[in-house]
Amino acid sequence: MEILENKWLDRIDYPTDLRALPPEALVPLCAELRQYIIDVLSENPGHFASSLGTVELTVALHYVFNTPFDRIVWDVGHQAYTHKILTGRKALFPTLRKWNGISGFPNPEESEYDAFIAGHASNSISAALGMAVASRLKDSAEDEHQVIAVLGDGSMTGGLAYEGLNNTSSNPNNLLIILNDNNMAIDHNVGGISEYLVDITTSHAYNKMRYDVYRALRKFNIITEDRRASILRFNNSLKALLTNQHNLFEGLSIRYFGPVDGHDVHQLVRVLKDIRHLKGPKLLHIRTVKGKGFKPAEESATEWHAPGKFNKTTGVRLCSDNSDLPSLYQDVFGNSLLELAREDKRIVGITPAMPTGCSLSIMMKEIPERTFDVGIAESHAVTFSAGLAKEGLVPFCNIYSSFMQRAYDQIIHDVAMQRLPVIFCLDRAGLVGEDGVTHHGYFDLCALRSVPNLTIASPINELDLRNLMYTASQFNGPFVLRYPRGRGVLKDWRKPFEKMPVGKGRKLADGKDIAVLSIGHIGNYVAKAIEQAKEKGVECAHYDMIFLKPLDEELLMEVGRNYSKIITVENGMISGGLGSAVLEFMSDRGFSPKIRRIGIPDQFVQHGTIADLERFCKMDVPSILEAIMLIKEDK
Amino acid sequence: MEILENKWLDRIDYPTDLRALPPEALVPLCAELRQYIIDVLSENPGHFASSLGTVELTVALHYVFNTPFDRIVWDVGHQAYTHKILTGRKALFPTLRKWNGISGFPNPEESEYDAFIAGHASNSISAALGMAVASRLKDSAEDEHQVIAVLGDGSMTGGLAYEGLNNTSSNPNNLLIILNDNNMAIDHNVGGISEYLVDITTSHAYNKMRYDVYRALRKFNIITEDRRASILRFNNSLKALLTNQHNLFEGLSIRYFGPVDGHDVHQLVRVLKDIRHLKGPKLLHIRTVKGKGFKPAEESATEWHAPGKFNKTTGVRLCSDNSDLPSLYQDVFGNSLLELAREDKRIVGITPAMPTGCSLSIMMKEIPERTFDVGIAESHAVTFSAGLAKEGLVPFCNIYSSFMQRAYDQIIHDVAMQRLPVIFCLDRAGLVGEDGVTHHGYFDLCALRSVPNLTIASPINELDLRNLMYTASQFNGPFVLRYPRGRGVLKDWRKPFEKMPVGKGRKLADGKDIAVLSIGHIGNYVAKAIEQAKEKGVECAHYDMIFLKPLDEELLMEVGRNYSKIITVENGMISGGLGSAVLEFMSDRGFSPKIRRIGIPDQFVQHGTIADLERFCKMDVPSILEAIMLIKEDK
Repeated sequence: MEILENKWLDRIDYPTDLRALPPEALVPLCAELRQYIIDVLSENPGHFASSLGTVELTVALHYVFNTPFDRIVWDVGHQAYTHKILTGRKALFPTLRKWNGISGFPNPEESEYDAFIAGHASNSISAALGMAVASRLKDSAEDEHQVIAVLGDGSMTGGLAYEGLNNTSSNPNNLLIILNDNNMAIDHNVGGISEYLVDITTSHAYNKMRYDVYRALRKFNIITEDRRASILRFNNSLKALLTNQHNLFEGLSIRYFGPVDGHDVHQLVRVLKDIRHLKGPKLLHIRTVKGKGFKPAEESATEWHAPGKFNKTTGVRLCSDNSDLPSLYQDVFGNSLLELAREDKRIVGITPAMPTGCSLSIMMKEIPERTFDVGIAESHAVTFSAGLAKEGLVPFCNIYSSFMQRAYDQIIHDVAMQRLPVIFCLDRAGLVGEDGVTHHGYFDLCALRSVPNLTIASPINELDLRNLMYTASQFNGPFVLRYPRGRGVLKDWRKPFEKMPVGKGRKLADGKDIAVLSIGHIGNYVAKAIEQAKEKGVECAHYDMIFLKPLDEELLMEVGRNYSKIITVENGMISGGLGSAVLEFMSDRGFSPKIRRIGIPDQFVQHGTIADLERFCKMDVPSILEAIMLIKEDK
Repeated sequence: MEILENKWLDRIDYPTDLRALPPEALVPLCAELRQYIIDVLSENPGHFASSLGTVELTVALHYVFNTPFDRIVWDVGHQAYTHKILTGRKALFPTLRKWNGISGFPNPEESEYDAFIAGHASNSISAALGMAVASRLKDSAEDEHQVIAVLGDGSMTGGLAYEGLNNTSSNPNNLLIILNDNNMAIDHNVGGISEYLVDITTSHAYNKMRYDVYRALRKFNIITEDRRASILRFNNSLKALLTNQHNLFEGLSIRYFGPVDGHDVHQLVRVLKDIRHLKGPKLLHIRTVKGKGFKPAEESATEWHAPGKFNKTTGVRLCSDNSDLPSLYQDVFGNSLLELAREDKRIVGITPAMPTGCSLSIMMKEIPERTFDVGIAESHAVTFSAGLAKEGLVPFCNIYSSFMQRAYDQIIHDVAMQRLPVIFCLDRAGLVGEDGVTHHGYFDLCALRSVPNLTIASPINELDLRNLMYTASQFNGPFVLRYPRGRGVLKDWRKPFEKMPVGKGRKLADGKDIAVLSIGHIGNYVAKAIEQAKEKGVECAHYDMIFLKPLDEELLMEVGRNYSKIITVENGMISGGLGSAVLEFMSDRGFSPKIRRIGIPDQFVQHGTIADLERFCKMDVPSILEAIMLIKEDK
């Protein structure tokens, strides 16, 4: 990486250094920051477009507020790279998302400037409100912290954000909410709206304008129909917000300011200085452009959300040639769903804001009327799917395992209790790698196993994923499929669908010494470890359970009768999952084999490559081999 | 119960019978229905005031719509008693909430007229939207079902309701949402607002009116300060809704009609007939009075929400004399929290809409500024508590175990991951009795055990609850306390607080044959069963684990070394909880005792008295005794 001299950025380690700069330094500083982000991210993949959009906002916030005494609560942390650079982590920035490096999201364990954790969207208002109310309660007026929640418009579709907003007026507090409006690129064209400190007294005119612009752009095909839903949703969300400005006069709710150009750092500084001492909850609406300052990203923000490595001069993304590698599970899901949906008109697809990430986009392109992107709203995604299923459709509801936690109650109450045939495809199950601690999907097996009426399965490869999807679509009951981030193992998985027997595992290898029971993709590691063990003279049988629930009792009886040494292997928390289920079964049936369980230990796991993390959790091939050798020797 | 002759009600078994009645029958029919509800509920306790408020609405809905072909989705089912009576369950109505009787909430397994399950609030819009979209997708225009979601204003504070509303405009559908506005009794006085089919074009005037009325009532002390928060919150929610009427013209969202007098059955019929064929999502806002038609309930709706038995003539509630019984765990919580909060200024109390149910009301009365009722918003309750804790306060966040499922992600992401000292008091843990299948709190132990950084405990009696609360307040980390609905076992629990060692259980009885390990109140049953076993010559040791996490390893080593027969007993799902934890421990340490686990089997449990349900789940004293005798004989 070329090292440029940065006149202003070089002087800054912490926000106190920033606050010592003269105002005229701010614009060039923003340029230096932006260039630094581009330089680093072109070689170290990370979230890109979001952070480019918040450079000026971040500089203005730390310039005006007395951080870390004042608290900035970021909502979904991938807009917070500038924040990291300005708060003691400039030199560490190239270690972003790497094993032992800094996290891609704010994390209080990393820095006191990270006021709250921010991996799952829409939590900032509630958290910041708690902090603001607490400070108001326990500190004297002069010691009161200013608390600022910064959230993007995407987070406004989450119910938690509404619950937070809805409660802002219930108790005295001086919360400042900054709504970073970058979704609506169409608004950007409306002209330099730069009034500030103007309480809009009618949102109607504003909305009228938005809609007119939308219609015009639609007419000229500048925005497409598939963007319509997210635009409508955002429009609704924002309106719910804007209404609240009535409350200024009624003393009931949130005082509204804006919209302000979020790339005019001087204006931002001025506005923030003006409103920071106003009493009561307030909202500042700013407009920013995702990818600002890097043309290709400005033009195609979604593509540049997390672009991987790229050439920072030409703007060409440096995709490695993956044509020889197996497919991503995500692509197998997306393509298989389309194939199934073509044949079975009952099939519909639902995603909470992740159509590209989970590849529902493939079906969306061909059959848009049977796909639903509901925004960041996992609870709704599940209950909505339940409603669809209740009327005879077959919904494939794809949610990242970690975000499924947001819909735990809906899975129990709205789906399982009524035995509705919703098929949950839990993507990103198990360790997810660089996104780290907030994004690992390792609670699903433990949390869902105790829920009656659920069928829970995990494929060992692409073919099983396809066939389990097909099986689930015919099953007529709630069905959970979990599979990891990343690639499978097969060259050719495009084979005719075959129905799999529900609740049946399979024996993959025979061996007299030890039985290894695995579920999901990690079974491929087991197969390798077993081969290596064989070379060392230890013979293991390998059972791919496929189903966590119902358990294959016949298979387990066979194991119980024939083996006194068992190893269980799963990509999930070690307490309560497959290992526990096997222990329960053996105990209930009067077997008492020695059982060693492999899985995630009882701690939150940080970020790194998946290989780093698997090694750390002792779930990689050498660790499985070691477990085999130890149990063989009765250790 | 006296049997009155009901001229109209006697003719109705199903809605087709209702639809055959002449319009002039509707008003007297409503009177008969109301009387029937009063008659039955005066002798069979159930939810009361809510259902009296929806008599006319229910009659109008079934009169106008072609149920069950058209679907009514009730939100929080305790407003649905009239619906049950009109849909084939008139004669069964006196069996309400009893073992093998009809459920207190709509349940599709009970009747095809119950379109969706309705125990947890705010799910109706999402579910109904799914049903409406499905019908629109798969049925021809003439076969399209009309889908109606009926929700009370309380449900509007839940994030899921917003997520649902926010998505109504994304796809074609003809959903009808009925907002039953009964919280705002103050509005009732504003005069007979009876315009309908009037799209309000400015919500500002409406809100201004509401606020003026509020101020007037406040001034004359007609409403109190503690009602303020819920009124403000509701006002906000409703406003978010009302704004959406702008969308009528913009084609973006929900068409708004109302407000309409919800006790004028003729007007309701007329309005519903007028709007039922209108295309697109629409919302009808009606005003009703909780407890309508029964004076004492109209005057004090909260008290008459679920009043128990009462004299239907005098309106006197027939409270049984409980002065000889032990206290409710709820009262122990409420009183102990107040005692702790008096001494420790850091302590605050949070409840999502259950201040009376959980007895936070006791602290609320004396220290209102440190208590927070956030409305039906469990996710916010948890993240808000996390924010409070982050700034050094000690929040006691009281949530019914079953509703905690709504905040599973927030517990993991916002609390556990940051090790914030939020104290979760999970009330109504385990079987809850008459509220039944949607309200049992039996997933908490399994779902939370795998979450790192949590401490999880359950008291065997009132004294332990108090002391665990005190211990938690000093602990400085996330702490989960779960305790059941109902009474403890002690006469006198008002003793000085004592700190308990975290992660330590205790031996309650010695015995050489079998070790029985229990957690929580159910340990009292174990003690009785052990006594009875002793009379039969079997000697059991009894260990009260107190903590599920961290496990008392020293205690378990003692058990592992000394016993070859173990029974575990818990009031929670049998897979993944205490029993599994003990199995894991014994397996990891190389012990192989025979272990029998007692807990809730792998099925959803219906309603009845807690004693009925414990017997059914084989968790009562005779069942525990039986398990002891069987394991003794190696069966």
